[in-house]
Amino acid sequence: MPSKKYVQGMQEMRKHFGDAADQWIKVIHSIYPEFAKVKVEFPFGELYSRDVVDDRTRELCTVAALTVQGFALPELKVHMKGALNTGSSKAEILEIITQMIAYCGFPAATNSLSAAQEVFNEIE
Amino acid sequence: MPSKKYVQGMQEMRKHFGDAADQWIKVIHSIYPEFAKVKVEFPFGELYSRDVVDDRTRELCTVAALTVQGFALPELKVHMKGALNTGSSKAEILEIITQMIAYCGFPAATNSLSAAQEVFNEIE
Amino acid sequence: MPSKKYVQGMQEMRKHFGDAADQWIKVIHSIYPEFAKVKVEFPFGELYSRDVVDDRTRELCTVAALTVQGFALPELKVHMKGALNTGSSKAEILEIITQMIAYCGFPAATNSLSAAQEVFNEIE
Amino acid sequence: MPSKKYVQGMQEMRKHFGDAADQWIKVIHSIYPEFAKVKVEFPFGELYSRDVVDDRTRELCTVAALTVQGFALPELKVHMKGALNTGSSKAEILEIITQMIAYCGFPAATNSLSAAQEVFNEIE
Amino acid sequence: MPSKKYVQGMQEMRKHFGDAADQWIKVIHSIYPEFAKVKVEFPFGELYSRDVVDDRTRELCTVAALTVQGFALPELKVHMKGALNTGSSKAEILEIITQMIAYCGFPAATNSLSAAQEVFNEIE
Amino acid sequence: MPSKKYVQGMQEMRKHFGDAADQWIKVIHSIYPEFAKVKVEFPFGELYSRDVVDDRTRELCTVAALTVQGFALPELKVHMKGALNTGSSKAEILEIITQMIAYCGFPAATNSLSAAQEVFNEIE
Repeated sequence: MPSKKYVQGMQEMRKHFGDAADQWIKVIHSIYPEFAKVKVEFPFGELYSRDVVDDRTRELCTVAALTVQGFALPELKVHMKGALNTGSSKAEILEIITQMIAYCGFPAATNSLSAAQEVFNEIE
Repeated sequence: MPSKKYVQGMQEMRKHFGDAADQWIKVIHSIYPEFAKVKVEFPFGELYSRDVVDDRTRELCTVAALTVQGFALPELKVHMKGALNTGSSKAEILEIITQMIAYCGFPAATNSLSAAQEVFNEIE
Repeated sequence: MPSKKYVQGMQEMRKHFGDAADQWIKVIHSIYPEFAKVKVEFPFGELYSRDVVDDRTRELCTVAALTVQGFALPELKVHMKGALNTGSSKAEILEIITQMIAYCGFPAATNSLSAAQEVFNEIE
Repeated sequence: MPSKKYVQGMQEMRKHFGDAADQWIKVIHSIYPEFAKVKVEFPFGELYSRDVVDDRTRELCTVAALTVQGFALPELKVHMKGALNTGSSKAEILEIITQMIAYCGFPAATNSLSAAQEVFNEIE
Repeated sequence: MPSKKYVQGMQEMRKHFGDAADQWIKVIHSIYPEFAKVKVEFPFGELYSRDVVDDRTRELCTVAALTVQGFALPELKVHMKGALNTGSSKAEILEIITQMIAYCGFPAATNSLSAAQEVFNEIE
Repeated sequence: MPSKKYVQGMQEMRKHFGDAADQWIKVIHSIYPEFAKVKVEFPFGELYSRDVVDDRTRELCTVAALTVQGFALPELKVHMKGALNTGSSKAEILEIITQMIAYCGFPAATNSLSAAQEVFNEIE
């Protein structure tokens, strides 16, 4: 039986990603159930479900953070959708990616820009 | 004579960092003037002076990004002050650092937490 | 009242770090209690308390991982003590750091080597 | 004529990777022979051939290290096979990847989890 | 109307990349015009157009830097062409990649080696 | 008795760093002799002693690479001295650091700029 935190985490995930949340966790669960468990319970059941910062700001911060990492493109694309679903516009996402040039340089920011285009194309 | 973008950049920097902006640039200028020039003109004269995203959100995103890098502590401390000056609370900064655990793990996030404490101590 | 996972996590931490565990969490708690909570509950109450891999191997893997990051020196020093406490020798720690040269190059590995020396000096 | 260290390195590599070792070096040699030479001589002829730490622990530490880097997927997949060949189980590899969430966050760990699945599928 | 710095930047880019410069910027412009603007104006209109260091050395330094990042392969491939166009040989590029093993380890350097092979194949 | 490659490596190191080479290796040797051995034999006895690229270009590339890493300040300071000793000027070093802003952003480049100032102050 899933923990209370798991149930809360899945609810939080669906607020950010819609049905894609269940799909994402199903794939991870098929590889290693413990990974899927902590993926739901820790960031979404614990961190994101606290109301100190609103979901819209949280998702933009995550887009910024994953942009500077440079290698986090699959996770970044999920959170770009999360940013759109929590009230940010495409222009705001593109602007934050552009701002990140100052903190990670062009190569990582360009990787993120390409990811944004793929996400926007998928959605249309 | 400073470029139009430099003047605009210094104004933007003072909005974020107060008098510390001039101090910061003076130190960098004494090491290499060209570095100081692009530090003012590019992020602040160009990127931050655009109004697509508000300054408060921009500074929180920068705090998130510098947290995941792990090594950017001097710059991170400047932007934590920028976050406070543009309307974020200490609690919001600490919450974003905590959220970043999910994206960079504990070591980088703990480096950032220590930096936050130093900033809060300096201010008091 | 602390959660069951928190209690379990503190027990696990004391197995790895002795009394230093309580000291470490107390410092973090004084900055942001939520950060301290997840620091205990997630890696130690959840990940390390699973018995699929023994503690000795886990701590050496963490030393390897923090070595390649290059910037994680405060956390790395804690886990070097954890490695010693869970049955690794100084020679094994130094050998793993040396092995990591192949994966992160000399600069990050040399940062880790200096950290090891500080830890060994502290202990004596 | 290959150096003594090169011969020793190729023997060590075959212990870890079987026939895939020769294939891997052949590809690198076709791009730049000097790179292939140091790839064999340095990590395998020098570092791995020392007996301070056993091969099984070494390979798990390498999997941990390459997981936190986030971008090292081709090399990581080779060392996941090395981990299996030196006595680790799939469950141990997946558990170490999951442990690394605490040190590199979910994006890098998820990249590694996907790589593990590809390796396990290839093997079957 | 493009700024003076934009015009100067496009001229500099064409010196490094030939017609591919216009193609590269066109793709970025179609995703976000502001990103394309600063991509031309800042590194090429400002940094590269200064004559303190010659273009050949600048491009090799950029190849070195992008090699150690590990994740910057699309940008790295562009600058490998830039290195060839500004007077470096294939052997020099391969040698710098090999030198970088000492600073970033084999995984990032091997990613860069594969990128070099793709670039050399494209050109022939 | 030291290997032929070790002797060659120490000669190469003294060409780059003067007497500081012996001092540097002595410190590392006191922590772990095997680390010191490979530090001399691999980058300096093997990589730098090849004549495909001249020492001046090699050292500038290393300064570029360590700048983008952000965390490699002790090693970076050694190679800034190596760059000066192999014929680069202070201005060229500062210019390459400034160029790197485009590839790693301001935080890492600013760390490197501060390191450069420390090196220049030490030398005077």
